Amino acid sequence: MGIHQYFKSLSDLEKIYRCPGKFKFQEHSVASHSFKVTKVAQFLGTVEENKGNKVNWQALYEKALNHDYNELFTGDIKTPVKYASAELRNLFSQVEEQMTQKFIFKEFPKEYQQIYLDRFKEGKDDTLEGKILSVADKIDLLYESFGEIQKGNPEPLFQEIYEESLLTILEFKEMESVRYFLNEVLPDMLDEKFIEHSELNKVTQKIVKANLEE
Amino acid sequence: MGIHQYFKSLSDLEKIYRCPGKFKFQEHSVASHSFKVTKVAQFLGTVEENKGNKVNWQALYEKALNHDYNELFTGDIKTPVKYASAELRNLFSQVEEQMTQKFIFKEFPKEYQQIYLDRFKEGKDDTLEGKILSVADKIDLLYESFGEIQKGNPEPLFQEIYEESLLTILEFKEMESVRYFLNEVLPDMLDEKFIEHSELNKVTQKIVKANLEE
Amino acid sequence: MGIHQYFKSLSDLEKIYRCPGKFKFQEHSVASHSFKVTKVAQFLGTVEENKGNKVNWQALYEKALNHDYNELFTGDIKTPVKYASAELRNLFSQVEEQMTQKFIFKEFPKEYQQIYLDRFKEGKDDTLEGKILSVADKIDLLYESFGEIQKGNPEPLFQEIYEESLLTILEFKEMESVRYFLNEVLPDMLDEKFIEHSELNKVTQKIVKANLEE
Amino acid sequence: MGIHQYFKSLSDLEKIYRCPGKFKFQEHSVASHSFKVTKVAQFLGTVEENKGNKVNWQALYEKALNHDYNELFTGDIKTPVKYASAELRNLFSQVEEQMTQKFIFKEFPKEYQQIYLDRFKEGKDDTLEGKILSVADKIDLLYESFGEIQKGNPEPLFQEIYEESLLTILEFKEMESVRYFLNEVLPDMLDEKFIEHSELNKVTQKIVKANLEE
Amino acid sequence: MGIHQYFKSLSDLEKIYRCPGKFKFQEHSVASHSFKVTKVAQFLGTVEENKGNKVNWQALYEKALNHDYNELFTGDIKTPVKYASAELRNLFSQVEEQMTQKFIFKEFPKEYQQIYLDRFKEGKDDTLEGKILSVADKIDLLYESFGEIQKGNPEPLFQEIYEESLLTILEFKEMESVRYFLNEVLPDMLDEKFIEHSELNKVTQKIVKANLEE
Amino acid sequence: MGIHQYFKSLSDLEKIYRCPGKFKFQEHSVASHSFKVTKVAQFLGTVEENKGNKVNWQALYEKALNHDYNELFTGDIKTPVKYASAELRNLFSQVEEQMTQKFIFKEFPKEYQQIYLDRFKEGKDDTLEGKILSVADKIDLLYESFGEIQKGNPEPLFQEIYEESLLTILEFKEMESVRYFLNEVLPDMLDEKFIEHSELNKVTQKIVKANLEE
Repeated sequence: MGIHQYFKSLSDLEKIYRCPGKFKFQEHSVASHSFKVTKVAQFLGTVEENKGNKVNWQALYEKALNHDYNELFTGDIKTPVKYASAELRNLFSQVEEQMTQKFIFKEFPKEYQQIYLDRFKEGKDDTLEGKILSVADKIDLLYESFGEIQKGNPEPLFQEIYEESLLTILEFKEMESVRYFLNEVLPDMLDEKFIEHSELNKVTQKIVKANLEE
Repeated sequence: MGIHQYFKSLSDLEKIYRCPGKFKFQEHSVASHSFKVTKVAQFLGTVEENKGNKVNWQALYEKALNHDYNELFTGDIKTPVKYASAELRNLFSQVEEQMTQKFIFKEFPKEYQQIYLDRFKEGKDDTLEGKILSVADKIDLLYESFGEIQKGNPEPLFQEIYEESLLTILEFKEMESVRYFLNEVLPDMLDEKFIEHSELNKVTQKIVKANLEE
Repeated sequence: MGIHQYFKSLSDLEKIYRCPGKFKFQEHSVASHSFKVTKVAQFLGTVEENKGNKVNWQALYEKALNHDYNELFTGDIKTPVKYASAELRNLFSQVEEQMTQKFIFKEFPKEYQQIYLDRFKEGKDDTLEGKILSVADKIDLLYESFGEIQKGNPEPLFQEIYEESLLTILEFKEMESVRYFLNEVLPDMLDEKFIEHSELNKVTQKIVKANLEE
Repeated sequence: MGIHQYFKSLSDLEKIYRCPGKFKFQEHSVASHSFKVTKVAQFLGTVEENKGNKVNWQALYEKALNHDYNELFTGDIKTPVKYASAELRNLFSQVEEQMTQKFIFKEFPKEYQQIYLDRFKEGKDDTLEGKILSVADKIDLLYESFGEIQKGNPEPLFQEIYEESLLTILEFKEMESVRYFLNEVLPDMLDEKFIEHSELNKVTQKIVKANLEE
Repeated sequence: MGIHQYFKSLSDLEKIYRCPGKFKFQEHSVASHSFKVTKVAQFLGTVEENKGNKVNWQALYEKALNHDYNELFTGDIKTPVKYASAELRNLFSQVEEQMTQKFIFKEFPKEYQQIYLDRFKEGKDDTLEGKILSVADKIDLLYESFGEIQKGNPEPLFQEIYEESLLTILEFKEMESVRYFLNEVLPDMLDEKFIEHSELNKVTQKIVKANLEE
Repeated sequence: MGIHQYFKSLSDLEKIYRCPGKFKFQEHSVASHSFKVTKVAQFLGTVEENKGNKVNWQALYEKALNHDYNELFTGDIKTPVKYASAELRNLFSQVEEQMTQKFIFKEFPKEYQQIYLDRFKEGKDDTLEGKILSVADKIDLLYESFGEIQKGNPEPLFQEIYEESLLTILEFKEMESVRYFLNEVLPDMLDEKFIEHSELNKVTQKIVKANLEE
C-alpha cells in the first residue's frame, strides 16, 4: 500500500502487450509505447516552437507520459474492441477511469491525490499539447503497424491500423508539426529499401566477380 | 469471411495469455487452458460415472471446450477486473457475448448459427456438466497459481487466486468428483517435494563420500 | 504418484513444441494443437450431422482430445523422423505406447486404468469419428504450415508438410465434411490478402492526397 | 536519413536489454527503463514541489527521458564494465557521446541540431533536476535488482547492484524526495510478503477444514 | 544438397532445446551445450596434461564438438526416455545413427564421407579422450541441473539429473581431472551464496543506518 | 573464485546475443556462434588437408573455440561500433583484452594462467589456422545475415553485414577451402527456394484437381 505499489505498477506496464491476441513479429509493451510517444511528442513540440507557437512543455510531457497508464487495469483491449462499436469503447474507458481513481485513493497520500487524478485524466483535448499527444500516439501506432507490414505480417488488421492512424494524423493537417511529419518523415518511411532475394543474387555475383578477377 | 475466419481465430487463442500484466514464470494461453480444462473435466466426469451418476458427455465436452472462446474478443481481463467489482465483470461479460454473437452472424453459414450460439453460451449452469465445468476451470486455475507460488513468484495475486479457486471448488464439495479431488489429488499436490539448497549440499556430500570410499 | 501427476502432465504438454529444431515464426505446443484439433473436429462433426450422418460425439471428443497425449514421453519427433522411413516411425509409436501404458499403470487407480488405456489408444480408425480425427489433425497442420509460408518462412519443410497434409485430407474426399472444407474453407484460406509494399505506397499517397485536398 | 531514422531508433531502444549476459527472470529494455525513470522522477519532483522547492519541469522531463539514449550505440555495457574500472567506464562514455553527436549531425536538420545536442548531454548535474534524475535512475535500478532477488535469482551481481543503488540514493539523503523515499517507500518494498510453501500447506488445510465442516 | 545443407543444419542445432517438455528457467540448445562441453573438455585435458598424461587434442576436440550432432534428427529425447528403459534408449541411438549416416551419404561429397562418418560416431570410448568427453558432458549437465535447482525449479527431475550426473562423474574418480573437479570446482559450486530475503532486510537497514548517521 | 567461475561464465555466453539492439527473426548467442564457427572451421580445415596442406588441428580448434570469449565482458558491441570508426573498435578490443586478463589472474590457478592467456589472445593471425578462423567467422556471419534477409528482415544493416562478410571471405580467395566455399557452398545457398504465395495457389489447385478427378 502506498507509493511503493505505484512504483511497482510501472513494472507491470512492461508486461502489458499492445494489440494482444494477434500474431506479431515484434511485441510492444505499454511502457515502451509511452516512452516512444513522449519522445515523438517532444520532437513535434520542438517543431511547433521553432515555427513560433508557444508550447507548455510541462503539460505536454505529463499528457504523453501518462496517457495509457490506465491500461494497467484492463490491458490494451481498445484496439480490437474499437473495431466493434464506439459505445463499447466508451464503456471500457469508463471502467479504466474508475479503476484508476480507486487506485489513486487507495495508494496515494492525500496531498498527492488531486495531482495524480489530473495527470491520469484523458489528455487528448483541444489544446496544442492535447493535439500533439493525439498525433504522437498515432505516429507511434503508424510505426508499429508499418513495422509489421514491412516484415511481412499477413494479418489485415495491421493495414487497417496503418490507414486509420494515417487518417487521424491527417485530421490535424493544419498543425506545423503534422506538415513537417507529412513532408519530411513519411516519405523517408515509405522509401525504406526492401531487400529482395533476386537483388541478393545479383549483388553476390557482382562482388564475387569483381574480387576474383583482380 | 466464413469458417476459415473461425479456424484462423483458434490460432489467435494461442496468442492470448491469461492474467496479463503480471510477471509470471510460465505463461498460459487461452488455447492451452481450454485444453487442460477439458481434460480435467473428462477425468471428473469419469469419477462421477464410476460413482453411478449419469454424465451427458457431449454436453460436458462442449461446455469445457468452448467456455473461454469469447476471450478472443477482449482477452483475459476478467481476473484483474473481477477483483475490482462484480458489476464491472458483468459489463465485460455482456460485451464479450455481443461480440461473439456478431462474429457468429458474420462468419457462420445460416444452418450452423444457432448451434454455435448455443455452444458459446455460458456453460456454468446447474446441471452436473455445468458444475463439473465450474470445478475443472478452478482446478486448472489452482494448478496455474500453485505453479507460480511453487516457483517462488512473489506476486500476492497468485495466492489470492489460489485461495479463491480452492474456495470455489469447495462450494461443490457435495460432488463425488470434488471429494475425490480433495482426498486424492490435493494432498499429492501439497506433498510436492521442494528442493532445498541445504539438502543439495548434504546429498552431494553423501554421494561423493559413498563413491570415493569404495 | 496418482492423478496429481496426470494433471501436472497436462502442463508439460504446454512445453512440448511441435516440429522442434526448425525455425518457426510461431510456435505451437501439443496442448494448443490438441485444443485446435478438437475444435475443428467439432465443426466437421457438425457438418456430418447436418448432412444426415450419425456422429458419436463422445467418441469423437475423446479421440481428438487425447490423440497426441503420448507425445508427452517423446516429444513431437514424428514429423522429421517420418520423412526418413515408415519403419522408424513405427518404432517410435511403439515406444510411445509402451511409455503411456507404464504411466497409466503407475499413476492411475485400478478402476480407471482400462478407461484410460482405451482413451490413449490410436484413435485414427475406420469409424466416422476416426476419419474425422484424421482430417481435423491434418487441417490444423495445414493451417500451421500455411501460417509459416504466409509469413515468409523459407524452410522448404513447411511446403512439404502443407502438400502432405492436403494429400491426406484428399484421401477422405468422399466425406461430406471434407467436401465442405475443400469448397468453402480452403478457397478463403488461399484468398487471404497479402500486403505488398508497393500497395502500401499507393494506399498512403491516395489517403494523403484525398485528405490534404479537402 | 532524417527524422525518420530518429523515430525508427526509438524502436531499437526496445530491443536493447539492460545488464546483458546475466540470467534474469525479467528483462528490461532501455525504452521501458527510460519510461519508468521519467515516471519516478515525476513523483520525486512532485514531492520536492510539495515541500516548497521550485522544480523546472521541462528540464526534469528532458533529462529523464533522454538520459540513456546514447546506449543506442553501444548497448548497456556500463554495468559490468563499471565494476572493472572507472577509467574504462569513462572511455565508453566518450565513445557513446561521439556516436550520438555523429548521429545528430547526420540525421537532424540544422535548425534542431543544437537542441538535440543539449538534450542528449549528460543530465546528472548539480541542479535539483540533475539530482532528481540521479536518484530516479537508481530507484529504478533498485527495483529491478530487488525484483530479481525477490524471485530467487542466485546471481550475486544483483545484490551488488542493489547495495550500490541504495548507497547512491543515500548520497542524496538531504533531498526531501529522498527522505520521502527512504521513509515511505523503501519500508513497504522490504515488507513485501513472501509466499512460503509451508504457509501454503497451512492456508490450504485451514480453508478446506473450515469449508468442509460447515 | 551438399555442404550448404550441413552448414545450415548447425543453425537447427540452435533451435533444439535440451530436456524438452519440462519447465525450465533457462533453456539450453544443443549448439550451446556442445560449445560448453568442448570448453570444459579443454580444461579437463589441460589438467591431465599438466599431471603428465598425454592428450590427443585433435581427437578430444572432435569428440566433444560432435558428440550430440545426431540429435539434429530426433531432438534431445534421451533424457526422459532413458528413465524408462535402457532398451528404449538403445533403439533411439540406432535411429539417430542411421539418420546421421543417411545425411552424410546424401549431403557430403565422396571424399569427405568417411571422415564425417568417423566424426559422428559415438565418442565416449575407453581412451583418455573418450573418458574426458564422458566427464565433460556430465559436468555441463550438472551445471544445467544445478542452475535450475538454485533458481528454485520444483521439478524433481532436475535433482535426479543432478545426482545421476554426479554419480557418472564419480565413476571416473581415478582420473586426475575428475579429482581436480571434485576437490577444486565442486566445493565452490556448492558454496554459492544464496540471497535470502531476511538477509536483504538486514543489509538494507545496515546500509541505511550507516549512511544516515554520518 | 576459481575454475567454477570460469565454468559458470560459459553459461553467461549463452545469454549474450549477437548484434544487439536490432530487430532479428532469430537470435544467436555468442555460445552458439562459437560452436558453429568451430564446426565450420573443422570443415574448412578438412578441405585444406584434403588438398595437401598441413593443418595444426589443436591450434585451429583452440582459436575457433575461444575467439569470442572476451565478449563475456563487453557483449557483442563490435558490430555497430565498427561501422563508426576503426579507432573506436580498437579501444573496445583493448578493454576486452584487459578484462580477460584480469579474469584469468583472478580465477585461474597459477599453473594454468599462461595457457589461458595464450588461448584467449586474438587468434586471427597469418598462420593457416588463423586464416581459417577469419574465414569461418565470416561464413557464420554470412549465414546469420542471409537468414535474416531470407526471412524478410527489412533492416539494411543485414545486407551491409552480408556484403562485408563476403568481401572479407574473398580476401582469402587463394585458399583452397575458400575456393571450395565459393564454388560448392555459396551457389547452393543462393539457390534456396523461396516459397511464393502465388506458387502456393497453383500447387494447391494442382493437387486438389489431380486427386478429385481420380
